[in-house]
Order: sequence, then structure tokens, then C-alpha cells
Amino acid sequence: MIPLKELFEEARVLDSQDSLAAFRQDFFIPDSPVIYLDGNSLGRLPEKTRTRIMEEIDFRWGTRLIRSWNEQWYHLSQETGDLIAQVIGADRGTVIVCDSTSVNLYKLVMAAIKARPGRFTILSDDLNFPSDLYVIQGIIQQLGSGYRLELIHSADGLSVHPEDIGKHLRSDVALVVLSHVAFRSAWMYPMKEVTDHVHRAGALMLWDLSHSAGAVPVDLSGSGADLAVGCSYKYLNGGPGAPAWLYIRKDLQETLQSPVQGWFGADDPFNFGLDYKPADGIRRFLAGTPPVLSLSSIPAGVNMILQAGMPSIREKSVRQSDWFIRKVKDHLVSSGYSLQSPENSVFRGSHVSVSHPNAREICHQLIHDQPEVIPDFRKPTIIRFGITPLYTSYTDLAYALTGLEKHASASSGAREIPGEVT
Amino acid sequence: MIPLKELFEEARVLDSQDSLAAFRQDFFIPDSPVIYLDGNSLGRLPEKTRTRIMEEIDFRWGTRLIRSWNEQWYHLSQETGDLIAQVIGADRGTVIVCDSTSVNLYKLVMAAIKARPGRFTILSDDLNFPSDLYVIQGIIQQLGSGYRLELIHSADGLSVHPEDIGKHLRSDVALVVLSHVAFRSAWMYPMKEVTDHVHRAGALMLWDLSHSAGAVPVDLSGSGADLAVGCSYKYLNGGPGAPAWLYIRKDLQETLQSPVQGWFGADDPFNFGLDYKPADGIRRFLAGTPPVLSLSSIPAGVNMILQAGMPSIREKSVRQSDWFIRKVKDHLVSSGYSLQSPENSVFRGSHVSVSHPNAREICHQLIHDQPEVIPDFRKPTIIRFGITPLYTSYTDLAYALTGLEKHASASSGAREIPGEVT
Repeated sequence: MIPLKELFEEARVLDSQDSLAAFRQDFFIPDSPVIYLDGNSLGRLPEKTRTRIMEEIDFRWGTRLIRSWNEQWYHLSQETGDLIAQVIGADRGTVIVCDSTSVNLYKLVMAAIKARPGRFTILSDDLNFPSDLYVIQGIIQQLGSGYRLELIHSADGLSVHPEDIGKHLRSDVALVVLSHVAFRSAWMYPMKEVTDHVHRAGALMLWDLSHSAGAVPVDLSGSGADLAVGCSYKYLNGGPGAPAWLYIRKDLQETLQSPVQGWFGADDPFNFGLDYKPADGIRRFLAGTPPVLSLSSIPAGVNMILQAGMPSIREKSVRQSDWFIRKVKDHLVSSGYSLQSPENSVFRGSHVSVSHPNAREICHQLIHDQPEVIPDFRKPTIIRFGITPLYTSYTDLAYALTGLEKHASASSGAREIPGEVT
Repeated sequence: MIPLKELFEEARVLDSQDSLAAFRQDFFIPDSPVIYLDGNSLGRLPEKTRTRIMEEIDFRWGTRLIRSWNEQWYHLSQETGDLIAQVIGADRGTVIVCDSTSVNLYKLVMAAIKARPGRFTILSDDLNFPSDLYVIQGIIQQLGSGYRLELIHSADGLSVHPEDIGKHLRSDVALVVLSHVAFRSAWMYPMKEVTDHVHRAGALMLWDLSHSAGAVPVDLSGSGADLAVGCSYKYLNGGPGAPAWLYIRKDLQETLQSPVQGWFGADDPFNFGLDYKPADGIRRFLAGTPPVLSLSSIPAGVNMILQAGMPSIREKSVRQSDWFIRKVKDHLVSSGYSLQSPENSVFRGSHVSVSHPNAREICHQLIHDQPEVIPDFRKPTIIRFGITPLYTSYTDLAYALTGLEKHASASSGAREIPGEVT
């Protein structure tokens, strides 16, 4: 049994020493608060984003109307990209916000394949987020003869040793596409080491940073990575389905061509010429008109991350994750739980996964508990807890731990809980 | 000279007889109102959309958080598609809201080309919106050997005779892509007649309805058209960059394949299987996570259109456009203006274009007049006036007419006005 009184007292003390604690007030916390540990799926609403959206609606759309395109909206994709760039160690002019992660991945993979003629293999792993694999499968089918997707198999289902990648890097590999932090286990690749491997084999490296941006320090520029994509609605707190972003290393931008040549990526879209000429730089990877309200909901959250600083965020994330993991190991193994994330924080992102034979039912009980505890469930037996240092407290984690213990014997009946969106 | 007193008196009487006049109150009209005649670029903000967005922010995102995906968001793309379907004469389950018009066009053109093997020509016209041509040019380049885009030339720059299309419909035409209403002149094709021509030649027909949906009655189903795309931010009043939509005729859905295979188009996205299997029906053309705030801003505006009814909207649109055109012809030709839209309403959408050698400067003066009059400018000499019957009054048009006369002699100096986004 977890000693409840001691657990919550320990959490209280740790919270009182937390230098990032004040950021929690900058998020919208509803009257009936929940213990929210799913910021790895959908980040909380920053108060400043509320204000910004209302301004976009009443002033920009309602009052200035079409004039807002000139006054603000036209450069929003690039300006927001430059903000996100600061979170992931990228240079100005190398990141742009647009479309969804899947569409951005499609554009970059298509462009990368063309940039490596004579090479026919795209390499990934079976820890990768399925949508990434689906997109690549579609491209392979489209390109036809000879092209193939090769998946590195994770022996333990949690991790892939970077050296295993080396074994697959034959001379026909055009491109390697990996999630830097795996969505299920939070396994985190050493970015520079892997990128160096890939480059030595003459292939291009594309990182999916959906579970990394705002979660762990990333040095895209220092890693030498060629390409990256990521979403804005998890640790960046950009709101549901907020447009994603893409990164192209500066020196590659003029050599790559987007397969989707829309007017926002054209050199002079308002000239309305009949022939497409790509814009200079990263802008050429825009396609159509961006969804302004969803785009405007990104900057405030990113600014909070920049204000707190990724080193402080990472430090708290590791402390909280380590604390949570230690409690699981000390008190919950006997209830049937096992850790499904790397124990070494060097190889772990900012969520912690545990498994239990009754995981589905336990998740259901947690969500309907008092207070409600919201993690997420991943088939067949995984419960994920997102650690989001700007608003996660140790007390939140204490509630999660006690909930796990309390519901461990929940019947593993057939009750369905609906899927959730990472 | 326009007789001012009579003009405004006539407008006042016509406004008092307008059965749709009350709808104007359902839009957000700022304290310092402008004469807004650019609803063909960006529709006004419906009051109910304001309310809806605030609810999405505070309740759905802020309070329910990740649970909102199950409770509301997951089906929003389809539900909103079914709403728009009612505006364009399409069956339930044939329209879905997602991505931008450019991305949707890309997906459908790629799918259509695969569905017509052995045919290598895509046919369009030089009245089409440039982004559509850019997208097709990118596809042609990607497909390589043998594929070509053929553009039907408009002799007068305003229109293309439907019979001219017939001449281009050789047996290697796979697909015809046309804007139903041309963005510059408002020229409107007879949809069924053209579609029949195209089908007799064994090609597929794809309509861009960006300037049609909510502007003119459309009977997609009755026309037999195969495919369509359109935006939501013009006459549908869905807000800046609101996600676009796409239409696939029911019997074609299972035979077409999206080139961008994202998880939202997969059969069971939350199973997180490694292999893509497309969802049944229209949903397979979804790619990534949709931008929820921008998506939620669409339904209220569409509902207003359904409430007013397209026949009433069209009737007022034609009346207002005819009135405006008659005044231009009676009073403004001597000031150097000429009509650049079809005079016959049967072949005209819901905007009216006039040209003048000093158009750029005139536009600048109108926008900075008192009251401000907002049309839009299209190079080199076109001024477009959007007629949006749910909120356009005859008095608005009277202000525009007097402004045109007043500023006709504006110096055609080099002063730049920035481009605007249709």
C-alpha cells in the first residue's frame, strides 16, 4: 500500500519548492478541476490564447475583415515558425507552420525522395507513430517500382538501439524517418548520433518531433538533421488540431520542391500569374490558405515555453518523471503494474507509460474518479501519463498514483472506453 | 453624374422591401461600420460563430480537454461536410471538410489520374484560379513522362464558351478541372452541360466551387459531377482560412485512393496498427488532425444560408447585381468604367467586376474614404464587388457607386496598395 499521508505531504513539499509552479496560473483552469495528465495528447489552454482568439474574432475578422491579411495574417505562418524554431534549436527561416503533421510529412518525404535519385528505401521503425508509416506507405505505393519501406523492429517494444539503425543503413536508403520520442514508450533517440550515422550512409534524416517540441531540449541545428515535422497541440499547447510545422535545413531549402504547389507557396501569390514559381526559402512549402484561428492559438503557448526556458522545463520533467517512476516501482509492482518507459531519463521523453493487464478498465475508473484523473490508454495494456512541467504538479502525480493503486483490481470486463487522439 | 439623392432614395426603398434584410443583424457589425463588398474574399463574422468559438475554447478545449475528441470533435469534419452538402445539392456522406482547397485539389487530382490510366491530359482554362493551376502543374511535373496540362484560352478574358471545351475533349483527356464561377470575371459555367460533355469523352469532371458555394444554387448531384472542392471562407462565412471541403460522388468513393494516407483517413485510427487500411466512404480522404477552432467556425454560417434558402439568396443576388450593373452602365461609363462580368445573370456568379485604367488608385481611395468602401483589386485594372445577400444592402451598393464616380479621376500614380487574399 502507498502511504497516502506521506505521499501527499512529500508532493506538497516538492510543489512548494517548484520554481515553475507559477506558470500554472497562466493556464485556464476550470471551476471543477481535473487531474490532467494528458498534455502529451492535447495541451491545456493558455489564458493569453483565450484573449488572443477573442481579439482575432472581434477585431481581426469581425472588424478589420479582409484587411487583416495585409495587417497581420499573411506572415503568421512564418512568424509562428520562427517562434517554434527557438524551442527546437532551429535557425530563423527554417521552420514554418502549416497543414497537419501528416500532410507536412508527405510533402517532405516526397521532396526528399526526389533529392536522392537512385536510392529506393525509406527506413523507419515499428515504434513510429502509425500515421507516419501510413503516409510513407501511401508514397511507396504511388512511386511504384522498386521503392520500399523498411521497418526496424524493436525487440522489447520499447526502444531501438541506435546501433541497430546502422545495420539497416545500406546504400539504397534514401531517407530515414523516425519519431525522436516514441509515442507509446517515450523512448528517445540520441538525435545527433543517429543523424551522423544516417549522413555517413549518404541518406537524409527526417525527425518527427511531435512528442519532443516543448517536451525535451532539441538542438535541430546542432544535430545537422535535414528535415523535421511536428505538431503544435501537445507540449506546445497550441490547441486542438492546431496546424503543424515543418523544418528544412537552410542549405537544402532551394534544392527541395514541394509536391503540393499551392498559391501560398508561390513567389508572388497576389500577382495571379498562370505559372507557378516557388517562393524563396521555407515559404515554398506552404500550400493553401492557413486556418487563421487555429494558427493564432499557437504563439501564446510557445512564448510561455520560451519564457520558462527548455532547460528548466526539462529539469522539472525529469525530476517529476523519476519521482513518479520510483513510486510505481516501490509501491505498484505488487498490484500488477510494470514500467513501459526507459528508466534512464537520458533516453526518455516527457511521458511515462505503465502497463497492467486491466489497463483499459483502470483508465475508465480513473477518468470517472473523484477527482477525475485523465491519463490516456493505448492498446492493449498501456496507460500513459504526460508530464507537462508548466502545469503538472507533484500533487497531480500523487492523485494518479493513488488512483492506480485503488483501481488495480478493476474488473477487466468488456467495457469499452472510446479511443482518444494523441 | 449620378443623381445622389435619387440613388440613395431608390436604395432605401429597395432595402425596405428586402425579405432577407433581417439576416444582417445576425452578423457582427463593428461600431464603426464599413461598406463591405468583399464577402467573395472573406465573409463576415456570424454572431453565432463568436458564441460557438468561445464555447469551443472555454468548454471544449479549456474544460473537457482531450475528452472533447470523443464528445464532439472526431465527427466534426463529416458533420460539417454534411451541412455544406445541403448548400451544394450533394448527398449525405459525399462531402467532408478538411485541409485547404489546394491540398484537397491535389488529393483529388492525383486520385482521378490513377482512375483513368492511359489518359495523360488534364484540361483546364486560363480563367481558373491560379492556385488550382499551380497544383496541377506540380502534379504534372511529378508524374513525368507524357502527362500534360492543357489550358483552354478565354478569347475575351471573361468567359469560355462551353462548346469550346468540347473541341479540347480528345480521347487522352483524363480529367477536366474548372472553376464553376471564375474568380476574376464571375463567369459561370453551365455545370450540367459541361459535365455531360466531359463524361461523353470518358473523362472525369472536377469543379472548384470556391466562388459558388453559398453564392449560387448548385446541384452537384444532379449534374453528375465526379469531384469537387471549395473553400469555406467566402460566401459560406466560415472565417479566415477555415478548412476547405471536398466532394466525391458516392459510387466513386471506394474506387479512389488518397495520395496522402494520414491516420484520420484510416479505418480504425485508434487501433494504432502498423498498416494503413482506408476508412469506408468519404472519410478516407482525410489526412491529419483537423484544425478544430477553424473547423468549428464553419457550421453557424452554413446554417444561416440553409435557413435563408439558396433560391432566395440567389434571387436577391441577381437583383442587386443587375441593379448595380445598370447603374454602372447608365452613369459610370463616361467616367472610364467598363463592366468585366457577364451581363446575363444566367452566366454570372455573385460578384461584379468593373475595370478602369486607374483601378488600383481608385481602390485605394475607396478603402480610405468616409465611410470606408471595401471591394478588392485584381491586377491590372479590375475592381471586384462581392454581392452577399445575407448582409449586403442596396445602400451599400449606392455608396460603392458614388465612390466609384467620386474617385474616377484619382491619379494613376505609383502608389502601391498591397495585395489581398481571395
